[in-house]
Amino acid sequence: MSLLDYFRSSKPGSASLAKERLQILVAHDRISRNQPSYIPKLQQELLAVIQKYVNVGKDAISINYEQNDNQETLELDITLPDKSRQNN
Amino acid sequence: MSLLDYFRSSKPGSASLAKERLQILVAHDRISRNQPSYIPKLQQELLAVIQKYVNVGKDAISINYEQNDNQETLELDITLPDKSRQNN
Repeated sequence: MSLLDYFRSSKPGSASLAKERLQILVAHDRISRNQPSYIPKLQQELLAVIQKYVNVGKDAISINYEQNDNQETLELDITLPDKSRQNN
Repeated sequence: MSLLDYFRSSKPGSASLAKERLQILVAHDRISRNQPSYIPKLQQELLAVIQKYVNVGKDAISINYEQNDNQETLELDITLPDKSRQNN
């Protein structure tokens, strides 16, 4: 399964769930954990970039960060404001 | 399956494939396509941010962009330089 398939399968299918949504996922496969992680700083920069494009409050952004032996993952899930919806 | 499960299942399992790798995925669920997409510009900004943290050439970055009726997806797959590997 490709990553694009994942996104396709996870998108909302019913009209009641139809919202503008932006997801950003970061995965860092690390060979060693001896180096400091830059993911937390990267997260801040990603949020700053996103907020240049979409006007969302912090409560519209869900952040999930996980770390295990060899991988860090960061998931940003942003519900975009309804004002971007067109009348159709 | 959660997105984090996807990343876990797709990470290299054998030592010969063990490389530092950074993946960034962006999915934008759109209700309407009447608005211009900001994903291409977002892509440029994401690359600029990433290159502040990792010193990689353009040939180390694989970019995949897809668009269908209600969703755009952008996938950045970056092979990180071996110099970040520790001696262990």
